[in-house]
Amino acid sequence: MKKIIVQKFGGTSVADTEKIKNAAKIAIKEKENGNDVVVVVSAMGHTTDFLVKMAKELSSHPSDREMDMLLSTGEGVSIALLTMAIQAQGYDAVSFNAMQIGIMTEKIHSKARIIDIHTEKLRKNLNEGKIIVVAGFQGITEDGEITTLGRGGSDTSAVALASALNAERCDIYTDVEGVYTTDPRIVPKASKLKSVSYDEMLELAHAGANVLHPRSVETAKHYNVPLRVRSSFNTDNEGTLILGVEKMEIYKPVTGVASDLSQARIVVCDVPDKPGVAAKLFSKLAHENISVDMIIQSYARKVSNTNDIAFTVNLDDVPGTVSALESLKSEIGFNGEIQTNNDIAKVSIVGAGMIDRPGVASMMFEALAEQGINIKMISTSEIKISCLVDKSDADKAVKALHNVFELACDKTAEVKGDLPDV
Amino acid sequence: MKKIIVQKFGGTSVADTEKIKNAAKIAIKEKENGNDVVVVVSAMGHTTDFLVKMAKELSSHPSDREMDMLLSTGEGVSIALLTMAIQAQGYDAVSFNAMQIGIMTEKIHSKARIIDIHTEKLRKNLNEGKIIVVAGFQGITEDGEITTLGRGGSDTSAVALASALNAERCDIYTDVEGVYTTDPRIVPKASKLKSVSYDEMLELAHAGANVLHPRSVETAKHYNVPLRVRSSFNTDNEGTLILGVEKMEIYKPVTGVASDLSQARIVVCDVPDKPGVAAKLFSKLAHENISVDMIIQSYARKVSNTNDIAFTVNLDDVPGTVSALESLKSEIGFNGEIQTNNDIAKVSIVGAGMIDRPGVASMMFEALAEQGINIKMISTSEIKISCLVDKSDADKAVKALHNVFELACDKTAEVKGDLPDV
Repeated sequence: MKKIIVQKFGGTSVADTEKIKNAAKIAIKEKENGNDVVVVVSAMGHTTDFLVKMAKELSSHPSDREMDMLLSTGEGVSIALLTMAIQAQGYDAVSFNAMQIGIMTEKIHSKARIIDIHTEKLRKNLNEGKIIVVAGFQGITEDGEITTLGRGGSDTSAVALASALNAERCDIYTDVEGVYTTDPRIVPKASKLKSVSYDEMLELAHAGANVLHPRSVETAKHYNVPLRVRSSFNTDNEGTLILGVEKMEIYKPVTGVASDLSQARIVVCDVPDKPGVAAKLFSKLAHENISVDMIIQSYARKVSNTNDIAFTVNLDDVPGTVSALESLKSEIGFNGEIQTNNDIAKVSIVGAGMIDRPGVASMMFEALAEQGINIKMISTSEIKISCLVDKSDADKAVKALHNVFELACDKTAEVKGDLPDV
Repeated sequence: MKKIIVQKFGGTSVADTEKIKNAAKIAIKEKENGNDVVVVVSAMGHTTDFLVKMAKELSSHPSDREMDMLLSTGEGVSIALLTMAIQAQGYDAVSFNAMQIGIMTEKIHSKARIIDIHTEKLRKNLNEGKIIVVAGFQGITEDGEITTLGRGGSDTSAVALASALNAERCDIYTDVEGVYTTDPRIVPKASKLKSVSYDEMLELAHAGANVLHPRSVETAKHYNVPLRVRSSFNTDNEGTLILGVEKMEIYKPVTGVASDLSQARIVVCDVPDKPGVAAKLFSKLAHENISVDMIIQSYARKVSNTNDIAFTVNLDDVPGTVSALESLKSEIGFNGEIQTNNDIAKVSIVGAGMIDRPGVASMMFEALAEQGINIKMISTSEIKISCLVDKSDADKAVKALHNVFELACDKTAEVKGDLPDV
């Protein structure tokens, strides 16, 4: 039986008819390699923005159901056009939307999760030698409602299809060359990684490396689907393979360095040191739908029997966090100051190789100290260490860490694009 | 049980978000009148042209299947936006595409005919008090293929839905005020008809009055669905009601005058006068997919034992017709001239009232003669008489006929728009 390769082209890779022709060539090349090919496509370039703009002109709160009806049309356009482009090269191809295939999701509009994918129609058409072009980002419920998968949705569609079809690999074509050891705009000699583990990729993504949406990486990890991130516009470059750590050979303790400028630090001072206080505080924030990242609680001060709790939230959530905390003051019985600091950055080193290698953390702290960078908070996971620093120190910190963990390559990376598409 | 009104808004009536808001108001007003409302919508304004342009950039002959996949997205956008606009006014509404409802068609892409419409989902949602917004122009085959209905498709969708739901009436909202006795650009005092029969409307449409596509009128006639053509932008105007002749009171022999400038005359000279020649000639043209309209065969000349055959075809088909005829010369054994004349017009009078009223034809011929207009060909049906004249005489002929059959109204019609939308 032939191997199946799933390819995914994001919005920037199908932004106009020239780029669609390019995507068609890439699909055909894989077919010519002797593989069966299923292509997942996002909406063209700025289609989604345009549709959202019209919706907002009509309604301040358009219903999620109708937004899904509206936005799902974007992929309807790109699948038909890409299929025509493949056919124009003399290859047999066919497009399907989620309803036609049966990409089944929960009945939750705007952020549904895929439950099941029917593969009969796909297998039948692959057996007939066709290249299949599938609408990403969309799904269908049992009772025929159209849903969308939310941010990173097309990547998730591609990974889920690859899993359902037992595909050899899922290639994510985008406008970057792969996953780098750090942001090449900060460190021009950042190296493109040949491979990275799912967990490292997840930590890098959460730490601000915007190549793939964490959800698609989680899905790939769950189903153990090898992912490859590569450029639509430079196919000589093999990109970066993302796979299970068990398949990787690990030479270095640290794989990459990331910085995240989107967080703010909140310090709640003089909170009573008694059980249940932290729980009340964070359950209040959870109730307000505010995600908290790093958390540190200071040792209790013996004299006042209080302590300070510091944590980070997204910059956008600072006002909501402060007002939630103010409303808790009487309930918890504290009267201390609530400090906020928006000028911070979270700098992280990530690497599956740091497990069972002591000394990585101290190397990090020393490297920052050598640069005179003050560490405000520290948090760690099995494969990541994050330090909160002043925003103005962020780039300097990234450069120092990239250097001390020997991540540089010989040549300067070409910088193209930045954000992944939906 | 409540009465059901089906409304159809064409592309010009939903061309931008302001016009969509206007369409929403019209739908809500009908709901407020105490009726159940099903709205059928075309793609917004020039969406279809834009999609076709991209397709042509990718393929000189895009496949019909993929064109249907592509074009059906246009209605997907307009149904969602119109539904949002209705919801924003505080009314319950829901959009459905053809696949979700089950608008079943033959498996013929780009010009499918509707076979059946499932009404369960529609009735359920109407019973819940919702205004339903349905994608026009599209259908679905038994095996889940998306089809489109061709020109006039959204009108046909609306009429078929009205029939399936036993609707009280199907209102076609467009950018003209109704059906006129003739083109108000030629005769400023043309009257808007209060009502017209299906057959008259069909003859007017075929004779060049571009308000409704003949196919939707045929469908309405077949299912006896009362149609009303009215303006989206002047709802004080009741428009024109199109219904069965049995429901009409007929006062005048002639209802309307139409001219058609899109035809050319072909004369095939000196064709052998023997059986089967005309058959061969016209079956050849039919085989080339060329539609022939008026046909006249002259009396055979005794001396040469040949005759001339004259007929009209669409201007676009003239080159194809000539080359088809040339290829027949040896087969049929004629060697006469093939004359073409592109500067002709077909002027027609239409009226159910001319049945059993002799003298209408002679009134027509006299009126044209009085203006010194030469008649080149004549054809008649039960409710229509058409004369072929020089193109330069067309407007003069229309004015004279409009006058002699007393069709003028007292006030000058406002002229808005011209062509119907797909």
